[in-house]
Amino acid sequence: MPGPEQAVKKKADILILNGVVLTLDAELEQRIDSGAIAVLDGKIDAVGPTNKIMTSYCAPKVIDASGCVVLPGLINSHTHAAMTLFRGLADDLPLMDWLNEHIFPAEARLTEEWVYWGTMLACAEMILSGTTTFCDMYLFEHKVAEAAKDAGMRALVGEVLYDFPSPSYGPIENGLKHTELLIEKWRGDPLVRIAVEPHALYTCSPKLLQQCCEIARRNQAPLIIHLSETEAEVRQIVERYGSRPVPHLANLGILGPGLIADHCVALDENDISLLAANDVKVVHNPESNMKLASGIAPVPRLLDSGITVALGTDGCASNNNLDMFGEMDTCAKLHKAATLDPTVLPAETVLQMATVNGAAALGWEGRLGRIAPGMLADIIIVDFAKPHLTPMYNPISHLVYAAGAADVRTSLIGGRIVMEDRKLLTLDLGEIFAHAREFAKQNGK
Amino acid sequence: MPGPEQAVKKKADILILNGVVLTLDAELEQRIDSGAIAVLDGKIDAVGPTNKIMTSYCAPKVIDASGCVVLPGLINSHTHAAMTLFRGLADDLPLMDWLNEHIFPAEARLTEEWVYWGTMLACAEMILSGTTTFCDMYLFEHKVAEAAKDAGMRALVGEVLYDFPSPSYGPIENGLKHTELLIEKWRGDPLVRIAVEPHALYTCSPKLLQQCCEIARRNQAPLIIHLSETEAEVRQIVERYGSRPVPHLANLGILGPGLIADHCVALDENDISLLAANDVKVVHNPESNMKLASGIAPVPRLLDSGITVALGTDGCASNNNLDMFGEMDTCAKLHKAATLDPTVLPAETVLQMATVNGAAALGWEGRLGRIAPGMLADIIIVDFAKPHLTPMYNPISHLVYAAGAADVRTSLIGGRIVMEDRKLLTLDLGEIFAHAREFAKQNGK
Repeated sequence: MPGPEQAVKKKADILILNGVVLTLDAELEQRIDSGAIAVLDGKIDAVGPTNKIMTSYCAPKVIDASGCVVLPGLINSHTHAAMTLFRGLADDLPLMDWLNEHIFPAEARLTEEWVYWGTMLACAEMILSGTTTFCDMYLFEHKVAEAAKDAGMRALVGEVLYDFPSPSYGPIENGLKHTELLIEKWRGDPLVRIAVEPHALYTCSPKLLQQCCEIARRNQAPLIIHLSETEAEVRQIVERYGSRPVPHLANLGILGPGLIADHCVALDENDISLLAANDVKVVHNPESNMKLASGIAPVPRLLDSGITVALGTDGCASNNNLDMFGEMDTCAKLHKAATLDPTVLPAETVLQMATVNGAAALGWEGRLGRIAPGMLADIIIVDFAKPHLTPMYNPISHLVYAAGAADVRTSLIGGRIVMEDRKLLTLDLGEIFAHAREFAKQNGK
Repeated sequence: MPGPEQAVKKKADILILNGVVLTLDAELEQRIDSGAIAVLDGKIDAVGPTNKIMTSYCAPKVIDASGCVVLPGLINSHTHAAMTLFRGLADDLPLMDWLNEHIFPAEARLTEEWVYWGTMLACAEMILSGTTTFCDMYLFEHKVAEAAKDAGMRALVGEVLYDFPSPSYGPIENGLKHTELLIEKWRGDPLVRIAVEPHALYTCSPKLLQQCCEIARRNQAPLIIHLSETEAEVRQIVERYGSRPVPHLANLGILGPGLIADHCVALDENDISLLAANDVKVVHNPESNMKLASGIAPVPRLLDSGITVALGTDGCASNNNLDMFGEMDTCAKLHKAATLDPTVLPAETVLQMATVNGAAALGWEGRLGRIAPGMLADIIIVDFAKPHLTPMYNPISHLVYAAGAADVRTSLIGGRIVMEDRKLLTLDLGEIFAHAREFAKQNGK
């Protein structure tokens, strides 16, 4: 006969039990061994010790996370998802040869259908590797939004804008209109948000940048741009406008807390001060910066200045995967080698870059990136019963320095299970592979 | 009724069919689509198109490698396998704090039994991630040899030697004797070979180094040493002996083709010339060098000088895994960032470092590291039917820049299947986990 406590159990949708829960929440216990999470209506209703949660909740779906570490889903804060189609098409070349002889010709053959399938392929890879949210910039971005929605992924997306005509929208006036329509169309969507995304300072006139900024501010949408990716870019902007990229944006009145600046490799101290003073968000893409020989962003300095630095993979043509575990590992190690200081970017800081900082950068602050009551239920369960994760002294060390993409067992986005025991539940891999292979057949070397 | 061709089919032990075979052999076709391999008596008997091999061979065991890439097993040319037990015990600390407060006290608690189980754990991880051969330096190395043999892995191992007493063998005279006995014991073993392994210049007197060299040369065994790992080491050796580490070894008559030098981060042009002129083999450990903030080895310069450079993970305390796929990826990217040249260390070069160069460095040249008739049958089959490996333009690009440890499906070492469809066939994971967790319980924080 049920005791009196069971009569008052609250009904949740999903219970995750018996895992090592990492909350990444400053107010809560950071690590709950044998922890549990109750998910209700797409949000985290409660987190705590398993015995306590089991006393308070029941649910039709229970996930046993024994032997697993449970943490917020990873946030890939800068990518070009559909470039999965170009993965390995060309590598190890001088930048201009790579772009002009391989990437630009391949992009000229893109259609909105290819962008949809390339993004679906990216979503499959991202879900399988523990990413639950991504931020995208590309052509035909309305299809990226559709694909993210179809995959059940959380995404901040925006059509790439530049002075010259686009294969997607034609002349730039259409691009600005297209962006505003996208913002309207997706307003209030539980998964997908729209950003305004001028490509870079060397492809966008001051006027276009200001128009973009105005649209972003009017719609309370993030403004996203590639910024100071290389020293060559800095030289070009200095030559053209008489100031470095960051002061150029400051002069145009564009620096501000809604600006997300991708790469930020080539910065001087004044640039860093301007970014910090204006609360600009920075996305670091270490693997892409390494592979393209762009350089090494001064991430320890940025963090010391109080700047929110998130982490991204960039597109698959310059990485060549969307694996945030690999990205965290490389990020943590690269800056130690660059500064000759083994204490910079400790594992915990890097895990924050891939979770809470991503949420803060992309405008989901206080709603994403932590395991706490009221937060959106974007949760990953990582299987630690593996040789390379045994024994376990410190789960955060293992997540950053030892784990691999394939260790993620189960993923929830907004309380929906999108992968369970490595099986994708929202995507048909056979169909996606067929489309991707057809693209390669038509467009490969 | 069988036709006349079938009557003359040669009997192999194993046939691997329908894979994309990468031979890494300069004499053979580099890539055979729908390729096949016939394995007989632990060696590769033939490689070629599947239809041709099927016409010539039959075998009791047939592996269908459809959708897979088939290549030589990876060679981890420098590690301390048993340090799996210390993975994540302490990270992100100043070098001396990390060593004195965490690693050395943990090592003081080691026994030969712990080294055995730590190595078994390492073998499980290595086999699961596509490594078929490793080169080890540690304490109680007779147990490392045993564990490698029990796991069915190929290994070059040697007891670490230094001036002060060892918990393993006591005073150094015993260490030298112990090494000679190990060489005798394992002579002719099909999997395990023994090296002579003085730790480093700062822990070994000139006399000890010369004794080691003499034993190595007399026994035709490799001599292995940590060399020029940091600028601090260089300063210390200059102060003590009046010359940098490499010239110091040259003065002692120790440089030569049988010497394997691990790390080689802090080198000047004269050091590089000496290493090249004496055909010294170098093992590069990028992730460990990054994590410990040792610096970045001048690998492009070493390769340009004609030096054989192999790749290793170093131990798990400073990596923190034994994943050669991650190591290849980081290696290929790190040097592009360091030199600001995207063309250095292309994917093919890095794959050679992890295969043919490893074989050449460790003394298995002409017997290992390639898929060709007569070579030892150390073969891995990597499953490319994954989102992050689709589409596929260039298998070598994917192996280096996109693949993960968990993509390895099946592994053969010396013609024996040690893993099939991700199942380890030579190791009992439950037993290994129990021992590793017991160590952590007794010795953890």
